Amino acid sequence: MSDKTSRLEILRIRGKTAERKRDVVVKEGPVTIFLNDVDLVTLLCSPRNLDYLAVGFMFGEGLIKTKREIKKIFADEKDGAVWVETREGKKLDENILSRRFITTGCGKGLSFVDATGYKKGLKNKSRLRIPASSVTVLMREFQRKSELYRLTGGVHSAGLCDAKRILVFNEDIGRHNAIDKVLGECILKEIKIANPIMITSGRVSSEILIKAARSKIPVVISKSAPTDLAVRLACDLGITLVGFVRGSRMNVYSNGWRIVTEDF
Amino acid sequence: MSDKTSRLEILRIRGKTAERKRDVVVKEGPVTIFLNDVDLVTLLCSPRNLDYLAVGFMFGEGLIKTKREIKKIFADEKDGAVWVETREGKKLDENILSRRFITTGCGKGLSFVDATGYKKGLKNKSRLRIPASSVTVLMREFQRKSELYRLTGGVHSAGLCDAKRILVFNEDIGRHNAIDKVLGECILKEIKIANPIMITSGRVSSEILIKAARSKIPVVISKSAPTDLAVRLACDLGITLVGFVRGSRMNVYSNGWRIVTEDF
Repeated sequence: MSDKTSRLEILRIRGKTAERKRDVVVKEGPVTIFLNDVDLVTLLCSPRNLDYLAVGFMFGEGLIKTKREIKKIFADEKDGAVWVETREGKKLDENILSRRFITTGCGKGLSFVDATGYKKGLKNKSRLRIPASSVTVLMREFQRKSELYRLTGGVHSAGLCDAKRILVFNEDIGRHNAIDKVLGECILKEIKIANPIMITSGRVSSEILIKAARSKIPVVISKSAPTDLAVRLACDLGITLVGFVRGSRMNVYSNGWRIVTEDF
Repeated sequence: MSDKTSRLEILRIRGKTAERKRDVVVKEGPVTIFLNDVDLVTLLCSPRNLDYLAVGFMFGEGLIKTKREIKKIFADEKDGAVWVETREGKKLDENILSRRFITTGCGKGLSFVDATGYKKGLKNKSRLRIPASSVTVLMREFQRKSELYRLTGGVHSAGLCDAKRILVFNEDIGRHNAIDKVLGECILKEIKIANPIMITSGRVSSEILIKAARSKIPVVISKSAPTDLAVRLACDLGITLVGFVRGSRMNVYSNGWRIVTEDF
């Protein structure tokens, strides 16, 4: 049995016939993140690369920014726990707990994105321009890499690329977890990408856009659809949002000047 | 502009050509649920049927069980807020807040499902059996109903059916929200279905199974994949879990005796 999938006996029905078969199903497990020995959150996820997940989650919550802040990290994939110790011995006071409470699920995070000051700070000024054909090539590589999906039909993938290739790639049963793992891996391995392009298999909602903005990502490309709120945020935050990338077709929802075709 | 979608100007790229077009994108908005005037949670969702969403969410959190407990409910879809007043004037003490904190996202809920007592209480004893052909027919009707998905590619659908037809149906950008709306609608309209079948467009993770168990639903059918934890819970909780329903094909992951084919 792999660390990503379980083999189970299922009943496979095809019209009028049914047969017992062994089939592969993606793993799911609860993982608790402890920050300086205090229980921060429990996530349901694909139980691998838990150190990336913990660091990416904490980055998304504004709890850490760089690897230097982390003194020690230990992930126990078997028991589903990650212990993170920070240099400053950050305490989880009521304040942080209530913030988590409010933003998980999610929402109120948005109100502070609406504050002009915050928006200004996050506005992406990158002058990156990439050919539409590069988006097509990146999505093709992305789909080739998504082996777990092909095997089980049950996971999301996310990655960070430059204009030519995918440099960081992770999978998870959760759309957000996959992105958190990618951002966490970059922090832990101190990977710097000049003009990073985020690629995701999932729908692009406002939370994904905010994560991209915090990570100074100028371009987000997805196989799937965006929401209207994600598009509005992308416009305001200077991010190019490309959806429905399928073969050489795609829809550009915001800041289209970064995507170059022969016509434009 | 409809209450479900926004019209936006996009750049549609097809190979080497690009053209500006009007396109339809699904709406997303933050909605805050107030329970007895206290802010309970903010969710990002499709901002319609917010009363169903609030009641379904509170049911999932164990805060209410029946319509009788609700004294008043008012949903303001424009401003994204729902006020719920309960007869007992339930107070949101620290305890409930911390429970929310722990289960959102989610996870720790599982530990108490593992307690044998809890499992026994939830174990589904329904003797319902349905032909595989009924599953096919229900999924076909379900996909016909999913107009918002066809329009925007950006939402999940969920429903409750008897063996013949879909009786309750809702859509949302969130997999969980769509199910919460369905369960909330049943509570608010006091809809009783003898042997309800839950149908969902989304992947089936453990949280979905727990919601089905709490609602005494014997059969869950999905267009997509389950996780291994969902399958294990379904086995233990006496729930029949059917995935990858596509035409007359489907995979039955647990308690297959409820699905009748000519062979079995």
